[in-house]
Amino acid sequence: MSVMWRVKVAGLSLVAVSLSVELLVWLLRRLRPRKALNEALFFPSEIACVEHIFTPSSPHSCVCFLPHGVETSFSRLLRHILSTSSSLDLCVFAFSNMDLSRAVLALYRKGITIRVLADKDYTAITGSKIGVLHKAGICVRCNANSVHMHHKFALVDGRLLITGSLNWTLQAVQGNMENVLITEEPDLVQPFIKEFHRLWVLNDPAQCPKPSDQKPTQVFTKTSN
Amino acid sequence: MSVMWRVKVAGLSLVAVSLSVELLVWLLRRLRPRKALNEALFFPSEIACVEHIFTPSSPHSCVCFLPHGVETSFSRLLRHILSTSSSLDLCVFAFSNMDLSRAVLALYRKGITIRVLADKDYTAITGSKIGVLHKAGICVRCNANSVHMHHKFALVDGRLLITGSLNWTLQAVQGNMENVLITEEPDLVQPFIKEFHRLWVLNDPAQCPKPSDQKPTQVFTKTSN
Repeated sequence: MSVMWRVKVAGLSLVAVSLSVELLVWLLRRLRPRKALNEALFFPSEIACVEHIFTPSSPHSCVCFLPHGVETSFSRLLRHILSTSSSLDLCVFAFSNMDLSRAVLALYRKGITIRVLADKDYTAITGSKIGVLHKAGICVRCNANSVHMHHKFALVDGRLLITGSLNWTLQAVQGNMENVLITEEPDLVQPFIKEFHRLWVLNDPAQCPKPSDQKPTQVFTKTSN
Repeated sequence: MSVMWRVKVAGLSLVAVSLSVELLVWLLRRLRPRKALNEALFFPSEIACVEHIFTPSSPHSCVCFLPHGVETSFSRLLRHILSTSSSLDLCVFAFSNMDLSRAVLALYRKGITIRVLADKDYTAITGSKIGVLHKAGICVRCNANSVHMHHKFALVDGRLLITGSLNWTLQAVQGNMENVLITEEPDLVQPFIKEFHRLWVLNDPAQCPKPSDQKPTQVFTKTSN
């Protein structure tokens, strides 16, 4: 083989190898799945103003005495809830927190489809926001049996799971040691979607005791939003 | 270029391409991270005998009236806890479940390093197993302040996080609608390890009120296992 041909073969091999490496890098980038969001929040949260989260267009409008512009566990939680663009499914034992209620109502007014599953006994106590949500028109169902509905999870757009030990109360947010876990992992999100659907169907008003059998404080369930 | 040389160049290119493809497949297999365990359990759990989980060497030894050989949410939870090989960190609000207490004691007798962070008020109530664990020699710390320690999580070998809405009670396991999430995702596990460490140091007995300032029912903390 002449020197010229050896140079040509070597050159061709070099091109083949460099092209292969480029292909490899491109494929690795394409095939490696996008990292799912995983976040853990701990409470009690630092107490700070959250007005700028509700009114991002005028972030400096609030003149309250609380610290402003501080990112806290609670502000992170609120941001995740307010990031909902199509549907929010809530399954909560205790729901009395004003800011969380405001966030859910704000989403509802934006046209987000919201379903709330709540504990029957807690719903009846003073301070519960379940009645407020129901009055606003949000679709609420309570557990029809005597079992405690002790979940505290939310599903944002059927994509993001928010769950943990934190009840949706002021005491839990500002007082207790609590955790909230936020994840997009399909292996975690999908079972919660399935469980929400199971509980939603299970507590269909058609299967509930008739209103005449219920206590006056019971929030009656609705079949559609 | 002669026909023979053309064949040789084509053959060489073919070998280069096939080698590149093989390298690509090998690299993809090596570089794609092992899928972390992610599991969701829902309660109330079906009631079934769990004796075979504690005594796997004689799985048919139990003659109790409960269903045998049934895999339930609770048996899955027990298996994950009993899979601990080196360390178990517990941070639990309410702990009165007999089987969960038995599992923790069995691990302790096997030489597993166990640390328990418990809620001061719940520890003092009748039925709490925190005192039993403490008496057995397990290192227990209670929150030193008046804040509720409302967590319900466990860290197995600093690798596996078990968390959710489920308190470690019989009512939660067999009565309530609850969830437990089990994950190896480092982005979720690591913050919980950090939080456990923070709370453990925060509730160091050296910083706690003196025993004379505490109620008689208080479980006193220990500095080492």
